[in-house]
Amino acid sequence: MRHSLIASLLVLLPLGAGAVRAEDALRDQAKPLFEPIPKTAPALPDNPSSPEKLALGKMLYFEPRLSESRSFACSTCHNLSMGGVDGGALSSGNAQLAGREVQTVFNAVFNKSQYWDGRASDLKDQVVNSVMANPKAMLKTRGGPMAINPTELAATKQREIDQLKQMPGYADAFKKAFPNDADPLVYDNIGRAIAVFEATLITPDAPFDRWLTGDDAALDDTQKAGLKLFIDKGCASCHNGVNVGGASYAKFGVVASPGPEHLPAEDAGRYAVTKANADRYVFKVPSLRNVELTAPYFHTGSTFDLKKAVNVMAESQLGAKLADDEATKIVAFLKTLTGKQPEIVLPILPPRDR
Amino acid sequence: MRHSLIASLLVLLPLGAGAVRAEDALRDQAKPLFEPIPKTAPALPDNPSSPEKLALGKMLYFEPRLSESRSFACSTCHNLSMGGVDGGALSSGNAQLAGREVQTVFNAVFNKSQYWDGRASDLKDQVVNSVMANPKAMLKTRGGPMAINPTELAATKQREIDQLKQMPGYADAFKKAFPNDADPLVYDNIGRAIAVFEATLITPDAPFDRWLTGDDAALDDTQKAGLKLFIDKGCASCHNGVNVGGASYAKFGVVASPGPEHLPAEDAGRYAVTKANADRYVFKVPSLRNVELTAPYFHTGSTFDLKKAVNVMAESQLGAKLADDEATKIVAFLKTLTGKQPEIVLPILPPRDR
Repeated sequence: MRHSLIASLLVLLPLGAGAVRAEDALRDQAKPLFEPIPKTAPALPDNPSSPEKLALGKMLYFEPRLSESRSFACSTCHNLSMGGVDGGALSSGNAQLAGREVQTVFNAVFNKSQYWDGRASDLKDQVVNSVMANPKAMLKTRGGPMAINPTELAATKQREIDQLKQMPGYADAFKKAFPNDADPLVYDNIGRAIAVFEATLITPDAPFDRWLTGDDAALDDTQKAGLKLFIDKGCASCHNGVNVGGASYAKFGVVASPGPEHLPAEDAGRYAVTKANADRYVFKVPSLRNVELTAPYFHTGSTFDLKKAVNVMAESQLGAKLADDEATKIVAFLKTLTGKQPEIVLPILPPRDR
Repeated sequence: MRHSLIASLLVLLPLGAGAVRAEDALRDQAKPLFEPIPKTAPALPDNPSSPEKLALGKMLYFEPRLSESRSFACSTCHNLSMGGVDGGALSSGNAQLAGREVQTVFNAVFNKSQYWDGRASDLKDQVVNSVMANPKAMLKTRGGPMAINPTELAATKQREIDQLKQMPGYADAFKKAFPNDADPLVYDNIGRAIAVFEATLITPDAPFDRWLTGDDAALDDTQKAGLKLFIDKGCASCHNGVNVGGASYAKFGVVASPGPEHLPAEDAGRYAVTKANADRYVFKVPSLRNVELTAPYFHTGSTFDLKKAVNVMAESQLGAKLADDEATKIVAFLKTLTGKQPEIVLPILPPRDR
């Protein structure tokens, strides 16, 4: 006992008073900027969770028969095995899914809005918008799943419900999930249930979060140096908060254009939503949580190289040319944003009878 | 204690000596024909399992980046949430995936051969054949994933390996799964690992299996009557063994053609494999395990209605016209073949770096 106490003291000694103060100073600098991912799913306004609603939401998230082709589920592009993204399927030449790079569903509940252009205000809106988007709409539009022609809207909503009714098992699952609804199997309840499931897709316990809450050893010196650079260079002026991003909009190319490879002229970003000239080439600042798992990067998915992405951002957003070891350190820090991935047991989906 | 003993005796009384004998007689009739699904995964010849190989096989089973488009994993069409099939995506008008109806991966390890035409001798061959099939090949051929042109074979194998090497995490996973191989990341090891995972996808404890092994109450009277009809009418002459099918080949339309809806002239089945005239319109007898989960039915996926499928089979294979209540009872029996679905925790897949 005494022996191990002495050993512990010896381990503490090399830190010294000065080193401890540096650690504290960095944490003092970081704490007002960032926030750890909570350990439990947040509640959604006006959409209380229940075990039954959660179970239904998970089923629907994995339900390919919600799509027009009956082949694509939420989980196809927001793959829970792959950081909540499609790993670049879109950007690697799959002509069918032209659009913007898929954004991760993990921790999306903490974002200010959904999609690269923020056109959905919350998870439920995003779901409703995406379920609507049939593959034909995706073929024709840049920007991922889009709200379809309003004249088609009612018909499409009804088609979704009709498809679900081909699986009689869903009638019971909706009834249990929405016990107070006279007619629970309605379009908006698809979005409500999936949103409740998606709110559970959070990744706590990243090394950075453990460090932020007091575990000095959770980051090594290179990673801490990277964090300091991330703050001092100005990255954290946009990439901050619980999601290290996701909380604001910013023009891509605020100092210098990153060039058409990363920012093609035809996709003006949030301008398509607001029609305000100030929103040309403005995008939602993406979350950097689990960024090492969510390549390729940018709304164009134009690079798989995280260090290159960091350099492009430094030049285009901050007008800074990073030294090679600075970029390396920032990348080392970014990899500490990888949290515990949710453990997902596949749901069993009801059979279709027609 | 004594009270509950008396209660038990009272419950047993109504069965009577005669009823017990009828139960035993049916079981005596069934036992030589069928076999329960074992509770644990069978060993594969020349492909021993290990936790590491199983883990790798599961990763690869869920790996969409094995496909040319990086969008289709084994799990896309052999969906483990949906009885190991795609629930009819193919047969409901998805022009991209023309071919035969998807066969379930569940209990496939017990089949004599794989595919509707038996062109793969085991799971590993099926995997190797399917991984090869790029979406272009699937577009052009009837019959599902086909072995591609031999002159392209080497290039395609190499492309698979190159794609996997874009995810550096796989190097380590292959090394652990194949510790004795000098170069473990080779094409055939993809098939070996996935086959080991697929061998675990078995569905024990179906009501029928519990009844077969002595639990009288596992089937109700209608289901038992259905089993008796299933045997007496001749269904079990092909649909027998551990998989209630999957053990032999048979001509579809042996007594009368089921018509072009179910048996289109252009798909001659096993003839394409053997070129023997006797194999025209011969198919592997499909397993009926979990049949209530694997609609639509037939190699054409031409109906979602299990009762209709039973009637078509009776007429075309046995020359029998079933009374409505006979078909109903057989369907009731078939639903007792649904076993415990495997509980699958999604694997975490390594990120891609280029």
